[in-house]
Amino acid sequence: MATPNPIRVTVWNEGLHELKNEAVQKIYPDGIHNAIAAFLQAAGFATRTATLRQPEHGLTQEVLDTTDVLIWWGHLAHGEVEDAIVDRVQQRVLAGMGLVVLHSGHHSKIFKRLMGTSGDLRWREADEKERIWVIEPAHPIAEGLPEYFELQPEEMYGERFDIPAPETLVLVSWFEGGEVFRSGCCYQRGSGKVFYFRPGHETYPTYYQPLVQQVIINGVKWAYTRTPVAPRVVAVKEFMK
Amino acid sequence: MATPNPIRVTVWNEGLHELKNEAVQKIYPDGIHNAIAAFLQAAGFATRTATLRQPEHGLTQEVLDTTDVLIWWGHLAHGEVEDAIVDRVQQRVLAGMGLVVLHSGHHSKIFKRLMGTSGDLRWREADEKERIWVIEPAHPIAEGLPEYFELQPEEMYGERFDIPAPETLVLVSWFEGGEVFRSGCCYQRGSGKVFYFRPGHETYPTYYQPLVQQVIINGVKWAYTRTPVAPRVVAVKEFMK
Amino acid sequence: MATPNPIRVTVWNEGLHELKNEAVQKIYPDGIHNAIAAFLQAAGFATRTATLRQPEHGLTQEVLDTTDVLIWWGHLAHGEVEDAIVDRVQQRVLAGMGLVVLHSGHHSKIFKRLMGTSGDLRWREADEKERIWVIEPAHPIAEGLPEYFELQPEEMYGERFDIPAPETLVLVSWFEGGEVFRSGCCYQRGSGKVFYFRPGHETYPTYYQPLVQQVIINGVKWAYTRTPVAPRVVAVKEFMK
Amino acid sequence: MATPNPIRVTVWNEGLHELKNEAVQKIYPDGIHNAIAAFLQAAGFATRTATLRQPEHGLTQEVLDTTDVLIWWGHLAHGEVEDAIVDRVQQRVLAGMGLVVLHSGHHSKIFKRLMGTSGDLRWREADEKERIWVIEPAHPIAEGLPEYFELQPEEMYGERFDIPAPETLVLVSWFEGGEVFRSGCCYQRGSGKVFYFRPGHETYPTYYQPLVQQVIINGVKWAYTRTPVAPRVVAVKEFMK
Repeated sequence: MATPNPIRVTVWNEGLHELKNEAVQKIYPDGIHNAIAAFLQAAGFATRTATLRQPEHGLTQEVLDTTDVLIWWGHLAHGEVEDAIVDRVQQRVLAGMGLVVLHSGHHSKIFKRLMGTSGDLRWREADEKERIWVIEPAHPIAEGLPEYFELQPEEMYGERFDIPAPETLVLVSWFEGGEVFRSGCCYQRGSGKVFYFRPGHETYPTYYQPLVQQVIINGVKWAYTRTPVAPRVVAVKEFMK
Repeated sequence: MATPNPIRVTVWNEGLHELKNEAVQKIYPDGIHNAIAAFLQAAGFATRTATLRQPEHGLTQEVLDTTDVLIWWGHLAHGEVEDAIVDRVQQRVLAGMGLVVLHSGHHSKIFKRLMGTSGDLRWREADEKERIWVIEPAHPIAEGLPEYFELQPEEMYGERFDIPAPETLVLVSWFEGGEVFRSGCCYQRGSGKVFYFRPGHETYPTYYQPLVQQVIINGVKWAYTRTPVAPRVVAVKEFMK
Repeated sequence: MATPNPIRVTVWNEGLHELKNEAVQKIYPDGIHNAIAAFLQAAGFATRTATLRQPEHGLTQEVLDTTDVLIWWGHLAHGEVEDAIVDRVQQRVLAGMGLVVLHSGHHSKIFKRLMGTSGDLRWREADEKERIWVIEPAHPIAEGLPEYFELQPEEMYGERFDIPAPETLVLVSWFEGGEVFRSGCCYQRGSGKVFYFRPGHETYPTYYQPLVQQVIINGVKWAYTRTPVAPRVVAVKEFMK
Repeated sequence: MATPNPIRVTVWNEGLHELKNEAVQKIYPDGIHNAIAAFLQAAGFATRTATLRQPEHGLTQEVLDTTDVLIWWGHLAHGEVEDAIVDRVQQRVLAGMGLVVLHSGHHSKIFKRLMGTSGDLRWREADEKERIWVIEPAHPIAEGLPEYFELQPEEMYGERFDIPAPETLVLVSWFEGGEVFRSGCCYQRGSGKVFYFRPGHETYPTYYQPLVQQVIINGVKWAYTRTPVAPRVVAVKEFMK
């Protein structure tokens, strides 16, 4: 599906697991970013990728200025992301760029920066089953989803998840081992929208799952702001008599 | 613990299961209302009860006017509650009375009236385990609770629960059979606070569970509004020059 | 602008002021409903109207079933709207129909039904100036709006407005006489979206104001749910072993 | 009024206007911090002060660890507050300390850190009248307030205020010159509560106004968390078979 002015998506990935871990290489031979970019491209978005080890982590001002929605996957090296780049991404979000934060991105600098909290949570790697329930079935991010869908195996993430209460809570996960988790969380920050989506442990083929792809595609559409308005500091005299 | 001006609680119960069902009679020989009233009285509240079959369902204007927080348990006979009494309870909530709706009260007229939605949900009676997770550990309703606590057996209630998104979501349940549920939900309506709390199937001794009691006690304290202000329609001229 | 499957809008108006009041007749010779329908039709929606004095108030099950978004204007005769029709409209909203409530509709049965509150507010008719500020500039309902716009003269509506806290507060009004008001309020109820928009006193030509029209057009687009999902009561056995 | 375990409040003030500006010195000869501390002390809180030019800005770990609620007033020198101290304050908020941010603190590092947004707004110094409306009259922060109260003269702050939508919006200001502003905003961050309150330009005697004092006293009580629970990262094995 081609559109005249497709939404421009940049998929950012740390890209380190893929270099070090054979299991991850097998699942994502071109990296998690290219797996995600592939299905987004197929869905009609204008898609490119960026990774940690590129100059400026691939997120130059020019790249960000021509990105409508940024996807973020990171895990091992949150601390290596330079603060100046985090500042830049935050400014673009406040000016209207959408941001979709995936899985272990809960501890990324940019997510913590936009949330103001630690992003801490419970977790466990036990190859267990996750069942994701749709809490707001009429929300754009739930479009095309059944009442619930399952991922197995996945890593467990459990509450308490240290985030501000989501402005809209779309998805809640049930885990075989006994936990629950707010898995699909929507926020507005400035003119930009932020969507956190839980699944995607690097050693599982989660991003090939059609319904996971559907959620991310829906998330991109939802996070896209057609006519963003940048916040401004204004000293105004005009209204006073 | 006696206090000079204790919070005045009225525990309302339909009171029909107790008449018909031997299993319920064994668990709650004096009715669910008296079991709840007992631990609330012991917690220092000034407590009384009211039931469906009393004149005006025990909820005369005088009773409501001297009630700070009303507890509501109903199931079999929501339709028998007269609309005029529902109106009266709604008015008192808007004027500042707290309301704690328990379990099957999700389908009560008063809860649907205050929510504007159907209150529909999934359910299953299978003697299964419920694990209740604390999502907002610093909320007054979570005071004294551990990270999670368990009830077994309990009835399953599952999403999608047709309620407006809670203003504060305090508790989320995990069920053995695979569902999740928003189990502790806070709302403001007019000057009154509304707390929905899930557990309490009539054939299980749920209201004797100390942590369930703790949540209800906390809910009463939270729902109590010291200085309610009634909404008013006002035609005002005074500000115009 | 014609579209293959335009959003189907029904504009409901009480239609009584127009019969009784010469000033209103002059401004809206074909009724408020037709003035609103005209600009919605021009904006590309498939538009029709319905009024109080029609059989079933013009809101038969068939009409509602083929309505994507319903606009509501009422004032003098909220009490004449039959409860059975209010039930029917509420069911359609919960099943996914959008609802845009205008001005004095804050006291309509359907708005109070969906909110659970009284809808009370302060008001004054003093031909004063209203300045409407955009609080969430990136929200779809604010698309194309400047930072603020003015209406003069308008009726004053002031806080405290007895509504549940809006899930999104898009617009806040300033009034010359000294009040503020939450003028653009968004809610989700079941699968349906509800938008309350304040302006539109019957003796002023408010609905000819281009930016007022813009907000209502945006409101219709926002309130439209592409793939609504009706809430269901479900007894489920399938997950238990 | 003395209480056995009074809430421990630390009032932080930049304290620079008082050194440079004679008008400010006249109004607050002992500094804004001591003016605020005086009425808080009189209200029964255990109160102390801290200022920018003290070692560690007066906010040592020991001071923060024994502070239940921190008040923040800054304006000229937000940039001089060391990031390490901001980190420390943020950690304490997430661990349960309340934070009340006043007036120009909307641009402080700690407020922007906890909000994730710019805090930008419109402003004008024109000695104009502010009328503050109570939007949630039953909220603890509104206790004892009339429907509205006035400050004159005050500085104007206007929308759009670049903050996340408040979890509870308690107060909205009307300004003579034509603006509105969300003046009393509540947030939860981790186990800590954050309250932003608008008034308090340094050249006006705002903090001597009894109702302004009432709001700040109420804000301290509201922001105090009795039993905070620190968020934790936990790797858990115990639930899996």
